[in-house]
Amino acid sequence: MPRYKVTVEYDGRHLVGWQRQANGPSVQQHIEEAIQKFCGEDIRIQGAGRTDAGVHALGQVATFDLQKEHSPFTVMNAINQHIKPAPVAILDCENVDDEFNARFSATARHYLYRIINRRAPLTVDEGLAWHVKKELDSNAMAEAAEVFVGQHDFTSFRAAACQANSPVKTLSKMEISRFEDEIQVRLSARSFLHNQVRAMVGTLSLVGHGQWTKADVQAALDAKDRQKAGPNAPPHGLYLTDVDY
Amino acid sequence: MPRYKVTVEYDGRHLVGWQRQANGPSVQQHIEEAIQKFCGEDIRIQGAGRTDAGVHALGQVATFDLQKEHSPFTVMNAINQHIKPAPVAILDCENVDDEFNARFSATARHYLYRIINRRAPLTVDEGLAWHVKKELDSNAMAEAAEVFVGQHDFTSFRAAACQANSPVKTLSKMEISRFEDEIQVRLSARSFLHNQVRAMVGTLSLVGHGQWTKADVQAALDAKDRQKAGPNAPPHGLYLTDVDY
Repeated sequence: MPRYKVTVEYDGRHLVGWQRQANGPSVQQHIEEAIQKFCGEDIRIQGAGRTDAGVHALGQVATFDLQKEHSPFTVMNAINQHIKPAPVAILDCENVDDEFNARFSATARHYLYRIINRRAPLTVDEGLAWHVKKELDSNAMAEAAEVFVGQHDFTSFRAAACQANSPVKTLSKMEISRFEDEIQVRLSARSFLHNQVRAMVGTLSLVGHGQWTKADVQAALDAKDRQKAGPNAPPHGLYLTDVDY
Repeated sequence: MPRYKVTVEYDGRHLVGWQRQANGPSVQQHIEEAIQKFCGEDIRIQGAGRTDAGVHALGQVATFDLQKEHSPFTVMNAINQHIKPAPVAILDCENVDDEFNARFSATARHYLYRIINRRAPLTVDEGLAWHVKKELDSNAMAEAAEVFVGQHDFTSFRAAACQANSPVKTLSKMEISRFEDEIQVRLSARSFLHNQVRAMVGTLSLVGHGQWTKADVQAALDAKDRQKAGPNAPPHGLYLTDVDY
């Protein structure tokens, strides 16, 4: 059976997230239904990252098998054709061998978190960034972010619903930069816990507001208790940008 | 009477353009109604550029007078409060002297035109860029854009409805660069004719597709005939980014 790897972009604003849910349309469901319309095969696809409701992707990756052989170009165009008007697009499609799995073969996942830091409401970026009105000190946030880099027990930054076997993860990058009103947080790791990025960014926002110090972030990490960390940043600032294999 | 200068951002997707129209909500109408709700004054504001339906702004500028004195900070916040949920935001507000006029005092206007050049449909950028599926040669477009730079009679790139006294304008910049799938066109001039940017970008897309040469663009400019130039690029790729004074 031919196996396909697709690169997927989506606007999470009107989606319940990657995984199929009872309460609305998910990315997975949209793609599976488009495949069904295209070739009649009722399959389940595997995604690299199970993004939450409201979270966007510029480079999510998924794999699936089809009974019948089609060229990757045909598969890409057919899904894009049948998935309309859902805000989901297949950017690329290729054949991979049957050892390859979008989720388990991934060696790194890269996320971007966008904050727009200004008093005025958002217009073109509404639902595409976290709007923070009070001034954030992005240098202090960047300094405190160093606490997270490396291998740690991230229990304090993990959703109660997280299904990972271990809370120990290795964050290889967390870089924070400011361009005028926009603060961008870029993160990389082999894998992340459920809500880990949003919990870390939400906690760093407390540092940006001067309420917390870098030492407070360290203490929250050391506590291994979700109650000791800051709130989750909202989902609509978050983008899964790339997955490495 | 105090005069105020405001910097305005808007998402043109659900707006009929800058100017008041009978057929739907304009940016001007939204701002004027918000001012009316804030202080009861029924005024007309003056914008630096009369953007068309669907065109966005990151830094439009407008001026207006109020009978009663308020701090610029109060004016900004009050308009932002009362304009909701329209996708229009006041980014900045300051007092200016009564010689200053958003339209007539402008010394340069800067526009960005965004093209996303890929087969896959748009998701997060839907309505925020021109989607061109067939490959564009952005280097050929950049080379041909040189034809437009400088002082020319732009009759071939002017809407029939254009109200400017003269078709002669001086384009001080037209730079085209590509970042992966996105082609950005950055233009600057003291002022532009109606539809000039969209007609120039639409014409350059013919060069990008290999249908026209740089010499064809020169011939279209020399013809001083709108019928001899290419089609208008769609409005939703266009952003008024800045106005200089």
